[in-house]
Amino acid sequence: MTPKVANFLASSALTTPCLVIDLEVIERSFLRFRELLPQAAMYYAVKANPAPSILNLLSAAGAGFDAASVPEIESCLAAGSPPALISYSNTIKKQRDIARAYELGIKLFAFDSKEELAKIAAAAPGSRVFCRLAVESSGAVWPLDGKFGCSSRMAGDLLRTAPDLGLEPYGISFHVGSQQCDLVPWNLAIGRAAMIFRELSAEGLELKMLNLGGGFPVPYRSEVPPLDDICATIRTSLAQHFGNRIPDIAIEPGRAIVATSGVIRTEVVLVSRRDESVPERWVYLDIGKFGGLDETAGEAIQYALRTPADGQECGPVVLAGPTCDSVDVMYQNAGYQLPLSLCPGDQIDILAAGAYTTTTATVGFNGFSPVQQYYI
Amino acid sequence: MTPKVANFLASSALTTPCLVIDLEVIERSFLRFRELLPQAAMYYAVKANPAPSILNLLSAAGAGFDAASVPEIESCLAAGSPPALISYSNTIKKQRDIARAYELGIKLFAFDSKEELAKIAAAAPGSRVFCRLAVESSGAVWPLDGKFGCSSRMAGDLLRTAPDLGLEPYGISFHVGSQQCDLVPWNLAIGRAAMIFRELSAEGLELKMLNLGGGFPVPYRSEVPPLDDICATIRTSLAQHFGNRIPDIAIEPGRAIVATSGVIRTEVVLVSRRDESVPERWVYLDIGKFGGLDETAGEAIQYALRTPADGQECGPVVLAGPTCDSVDVMYQNAGYQLPLSLCPGDQIDILAAGAYTTTTATVGFNGFSPVQQYYI
Repeated sequence: MTPKVANFLASSALTTPCLVIDLEVIERSFLRFRELLPQAAMYYAVKANPAPSILNLLSAAGAGFDAASVPEIESCLAAGSPPALISYSNTIKKQRDIARAYELGIKLFAFDSKEELAKIAAAAPGSRVFCRLAVESSGAVWPLDGKFGCSSRMAGDLLRTAPDLGLEPYGISFHVGSQQCDLVPWNLAIGRAAMIFRELSAEGLELKMLNLGGGFPVPYRSEVPPLDDICATIRTSLAQHFGNRIPDIAIEPGRAIVATSGVIRTEVVLVSRRDESVPERWVYLDIGKFGGLDETAGEAIQYALRTPADGQECGPVVLAGPTCDSVDVMYQNAGYQLPLSLCPGDQIDILAAGAYTTTTATVGFNGFSPVQQYYI
Repeated sequence: MTPKVANFLASSALTTPCLVIDLEVIERSFLRFRELLPQAAMYYAVKANPAPSILNLLSAAGAGFDAASVPEIESCLAAGSPPALISYSNTIKKQRDIARAYELGIKLFAFDSKEELAKIAAAAPGSRVFCRLAVESSGAVWPLDGKFGCSSRMAGDLLRTAPDLGLEPYGISFHVGSQQCDLVPWNLAIGRAAMIFRELSAEGLELKMLNLGGGFPVPYRSEVPPLDDICATIRTSLAQHFGNRIPDIAIEPGRAIVATSGVIRTEVVLVSRRDESVPERWVYLDIGKFGGLDETAGEAIQYALRTPADGQECGPVVLAGPTCDSVDVMYQNAGYQLPLSLCPGDQIDILAAGAYTTTTATVGFNGFSPVQQYYI
């Protein structure tokens, strides 16, 4: 938590749950990527947090945007982004949405199937297209394979057909999986992409861009490999696999730009024991899976917590949300411990909560409003 | 799908995804419960669908309401419900929310822990309280144990202390689990509740109400036991376990009141194969887990689907939503088959989609709006 956020929380009587984002942290994260991967064009993954304050800041700093939908594209344009810096990176698009994006000036589209490529050809003639490759994502906390990406063979075949469809075969993308804590998948994915670049180059088809996607991990409850190490691995892998012919590089970080900028302040609603003989307490917060903590599904993202009594004697807890739904339990097996003195009305801060919290909140399940947001 | 909904969908050029609810079906479902369990006071579980049209209709018909939060209570009051017909049935409540509910005239509160009972005593003196018992919920598609309910011993102990706290020990509630397809849990739960009634009665403490909760199943893709059979089991179990001393009965159906009233119309965004050698197609709809189909988590609720080509040759599909998130896959293992002719732009109707779809939609993950709603 930055001093700015701490002061804001201390000086304002905010209704909980609320998210406070320090925009300076976002700018620092952006500049850090520029320093560590100077050759990479950044397309911020808008879905991680599409707040106008964030898009304005990143647009002014020169970032591009990875948009998942027409509304996201419109938000980026409203933030002042030139259309040329917006990539429509969702591989699943309605044809009329492709047409609308094209009207708005978007000329860069992702695909991972023959059928999607045909839609882009019909609705966005002459555009640049890049093919999403399915790659190894073991080691990721939130894997992204299965739903997205095609095989190397299919990627090559589809890119070969692009010119006949009136499209520019522009490059390859992949995604090693969100919150990827292993360095190897980046190397393997870059190697696989390079094979396709070489194969097509030998046939006279020169791809121009390699999009490394996102997946850069951030520290939640556990340490993660430093961004320096991941970017060093990427630089080394690019040299290893592409030699003197490194293509234009793009990255699509989302979590790594916004997560650590935000703190969610919550209130303890109830502390109870299911059975007096069991030491484990149930701690119910005023935010849960339906209010913004969607990424606690399967206890995947384990947020670090701060309480007013940190340092005092702790005991095991189950952490749950405030709704009448039994799936609204965040952590039951992850070994969370909280102070024994914790009681209703105490405030708990959830750290590094700036990513995938605001937009994954439901419109009002059980009558609870989505988390309030403050950008400072 | 009722003729009214079919006509509405056919005659209106609605933007998909959209939910169309036939209010007549809701009224029929309400009357059916009144017919099958005439002795039961109904508290509609607002969380299932809190649309004002539904609350107005049920309030006018004489139903009560099971509210999970102050905003839900306010919605019920706005629909004309007398406060005496509203139960604050969430066992997890902020003390100031209890106080606010009390100010609004609510005098019936659920609890399942000593700590919650103390909050109710402090903020809603003299109120009626009922204790939620943890009961067997195997057989339920969406079990509700774990997070809620206490042991029989603890329930008895807590109800005994209520008078000393200035509260009226009013009764017992349980919930056999949502979409419960086994008849036995109702019988067992009623039997367990009756033991507590008898035990306390022997000490001179006469509980007045048994709240059977919800869990009444509705037919999705598979048949479920008819409501007649479930209600017959309940009537028999009440006679068996309570004899001549059957208490006031309450029920809290939500899903069983609204699910079958609604159809979600969706559009196919993409049909693709991950690999040409695999027969399985991926079918991406314009609604998914983040847009209202939250209950497909773990493939728990399996909706019945209708396509324009029903009856034609079918093949296996994976059904996924439109976002860039890999968890946004509804059905991968449930054996769904759809027509081979299916292509982008086709409309698919999701049947019995009136419950837990509107409020579990996210505020706009990936820029996609929550499902549009029509109440006819």
